[in-house]
Amino acid sequence: MRTFPLLAAAAALAFAVPALAQTTPADLRDAALKDDIAWDITEGLTTEIGPRLAGTPDEARARAWAVEKLKALGFHNVRIETYRMPVWVRGEEKAEILGPFPQRLVLAALGNSGSTGTRPLEAEIVYFPTLADLQAAPDGSLKGKIAFVSHAMHRTQDGSSYGPYGQVRRAGPAVAARKGAAAILIRSIGTDYHRNPHAGGTSWPEGVKPIPAAALSLPDSEQLERVIKRGKPVKVRLTLTPQFVGERESGNVIAEVPGSDPGAGIVLVGGHLDSWDLGTGAIDDASGVAITAAAAKRIMESGQPRRTIRVVWFGAEEVGVFGGRAYAEAHKGERHAAAAESDFGADRIWKFDVNLPASAAAVGDRLATALSPLGITRGRDIAGDGADVGPMMQRGVAAIDLAQDGSRYFDLHHTPDDTLDKIDPEQLRQNVAAWTAMLAIVANAPEEIGPVTPRP
Amino acid sequence: MRTFPLLAAAAALAFAVPALAQTTPADLRDAALKDDIAWDITEGLTTEIGPRLAGTPDEARARAWAVEKLKALGFHNVRIETYRMPVWVRGEEKAEILGPFPQRLVLAALGNSGSTGTRPLEAEIVYFPTLADLQAAPDGSLKGKIAFVSHAMHRTQDGSSYGPYGQVRRAGPAVAARKGAAAILIRSIGTDYHRNPHAGGTSWPEGVKPIPAAALSLPDSEQLERVIKRGKPVKVRLTLTPQFVGERESGNVIAEVPGSDPGAGIVLVGGHLDSWDLGTGAIDDASGVAITAAAAKRIMESGQPRRTIRVVWFGAEEVGVFGGRAYAEAHKGERHAAAAESDFGADRIWKFDVNLPASAAAVGDRLATALSPLGITRGRDIAGDGADVGPMMQRGVAAIDLAQDGSRYFDLHHTPDDTLDKIDPEQLRQNVAAWTAMLAIVANAPEEIGPVTPRP
Repeated sequence: MRTFPLLAAAAALAFAVPALAQTTPADLRDAALKDDIAWDITEGLTTEIGPRLAGTPDEARARAWAVEKLKALGFHNVRIETYRMPVWVRGEEKAEILGPFPQRLVLAALGNSGSTGTRPLEAEIVYFPTLADLQAAPDGSLKGKIAFVSHAMHRTQDGSSYGPYGQVRRAGPAVAARKGAAAILIRSIGTDYHRNPHAGGTSWPEGVKPIPAAALSLPDSEQLERVIKRGKPVKVRLTLTPQFVGERESGNVIAEVPGSDPGAGIVLVGGHLDSWDLGTGAIDDASGVAITAAAAKRIMESGQPRRTIRVVWFGAEEVGVFGGRAYAEAHKGERHAAAAESDFGADRIWKFDVNLPASAAAVGDRLATALSPLGITRGRDIAGDGADVGPMMQRGVAAIDLAQDGSRYFDLHHTPDDTLDKIDPEQLRQNVAAWTAMLAIVANAPEEIGPVTPRP
Repeated sequence: MRTFPLLAAAAALAFAVPALAQTTPADLRDAALKDDIAWDITEGLTTEIGPRLAGTPDEARARAWAVEKLKALGFHNVRIETYRMPVWVRGEEKAEILGPFPQRLVLAALGNSGSTGTRPLEAEIVYFPTLADLQAAPDGSLKGKIAFVSHAMHRTQDGSSYGPYGQVRRAGPAVAARKGAAAILIRSIGTDYHRNPHAGGTSWPEGVKPIPAAALSLPDSEQLERVIKRGKPVKVRLTLTPQFVGERESGNVIAEVPGSDPGAGIVLVGGHLDSWDLGTGAIDDASGVAITAAAAKRIMESGQPRRTIRVVWFGAEEVGVFGGRAYAEAHKGERHAAAAESDFGADRIWKFDVNLPASAAAVGDRLATALSPLGITRGRDIAGDGADVGPMMQRGVAAIDLAQDGSRYFDLHHTPDDTLDKIDPEQLRQNVAAWTAMLAIVANAPEEIGPVTPRP
């Protein structure tokens, strides 16, 4: 196992060496493989708060919990920065096939879905295997009907299938609404076979009136396909009563490890505090706030870093990145050296990517050396992941991505099944070790880490 | 691959050899590895009927579907034998922790549960790790409280853990009611970690007034345990509104392959047509009725067997074996040579056991030879599985158990997740092959298969 001689390099460059003393990134990394801080945060947040939908009292309780926890961990400048946002909440949701084969279907309204009202909608299904098929339907052809799109997402390690398949959820409802559909059902954007639908937001472009929109669990979606393939007209009764409850307060929770060199820029790390309402948001994203805070805490305990590490537990990510955008607006005047986010579960990190200026290319090499013993290889992509830190990266802040294995992420994502038991404590520790090594290197890098060209 | 020379043995014993012609059990077995009949039945019943709770219109539709299907397959004497039974149906079911950490819990009422009425019950939880702990609670100590028992079932290949752990569900509610509890919650009798509770019946001895009784999903049960372990009083709001709707009609569906020797006794095979109401009853027990009917159909196509094979798709098993008891009463005057039931999913058969009279010991040896190429070994247990055929076996009918691998059975059992996608077509075919070989041997055995001492 190679270790990186940080202090020697720093001394050679004649920078002020902070109080990391004899502790190298490799030492910190290896000690973090015994971490319990991240588990403690993940267990506490999912147990004592549970689901925490953006803008609700549950999310507000989560912010209070976060402040108490981050103060107890010894972080500096712990505070909440609030903003206001429109809030959507789930209502009743029921569906059944009326004929030819009467039976219940399990579904969940998509975020921002319209309502059927309390009187159920009864309408015939029009089936589309893919979003492209829906898009090809003639205007007006869906009048009074329920569109059903069943395009099946496939499993990938890097989560790249979420982009294209997720369009069925993000864009499909508006397409159906424009063509006159009374409602839309989609196959969940997910890869499991449990009767747990995958929630997630959809959006309505200006001028498109929201219609009821919901995701069927995969077993229900395939059942409905089989029923449709029998060739008889299929009629469904649907009740969805979500609603917008107006503007409410949300907020970001911020904590810091102050650096010794204020001019060197902030290293921004974090995840999001809010979750969808069906599960307890364990992999999405209690583990992300936990991993990043645990790593920052471990750096803090080892001595003062050169750069300030700012840990942000963002609010309202799931429903439209309100927290990330509010942060970028409020902090646009501050120099940020680099940013990184953990928001892809807690399975082991398998690769990393960077977007660093040429002047700091050696930082990437040192990361490769320090992360390699954890089984993490260097990727060829331009870093820039993380919805919440995205607005900062778009302004040219350098980026580091520590990519988790997402092979089972979309079995759980946005479902009732996103619960603590899905977190593997050993893999969680590997995450903390990687983040700790990364922070030790980036926060203490003697090089200037200046602005970069953002990922397109 | 060894094959068993059935015809030679039969001829040596100078019995009338039926019209199996050149087809040996091994030939029939191997041909059945390409079976599509069982998949067709399983897919059809779960798609065109779906859930089929005993005594409901859904179960009645299933009987009509079954008659049509069994007639189409060419079986003889296809008929429904009805009986009446008390019918319980699920109502609304909701639960949430009110404090100290407010959040929703996912649960399902146990069969025969009492009702809270439409006004929710709000009460404090009293926690018992095991049924023995609940039994040890002083009388009256639970007055006005909700008992919670979390004893964790463990996974076994042969399903033997269902007996002892299942007692929490079967007996726990009555124990809590006797001690004055207002309601009881149990950890689901299951081995998965999905937000899908496991339904299943409980019972109330004479004089015990039913209380609301429900099973939490495993993630919810462990969440409630964690909340309790924080040490503060835990209050829950519970709404369960199931009800008994009175006596209704249910029935068994019967089909036959008439044998050439009416005096040799009937070979009784089958599974149960009813299911719990949360899933579509794929592994419990669409696959069981499908496997046994497919095997009988394959024997029928190969020529007339010596003994009549009677396929029974029993009604109302889940809620108290009403169909099995009605059958035993209605047919007590008929000679049954042997009985076997498929009611443990559709994963591969890994062992078999018999309960045969000494005069038919050779039948067991021939079974061992014919099943061995399928990876099935002979067990040392006395056969007697199958709730529906149990009343016949208790009267001394010989028994053959073809034991499926149950390692993942209790991930799905009685949950919303018991759906078609859980059936592996290749393992289903192995089941049909084993049942076909078994029927070829037992239905054609030249030996007398007389009464046996039932398994204790």
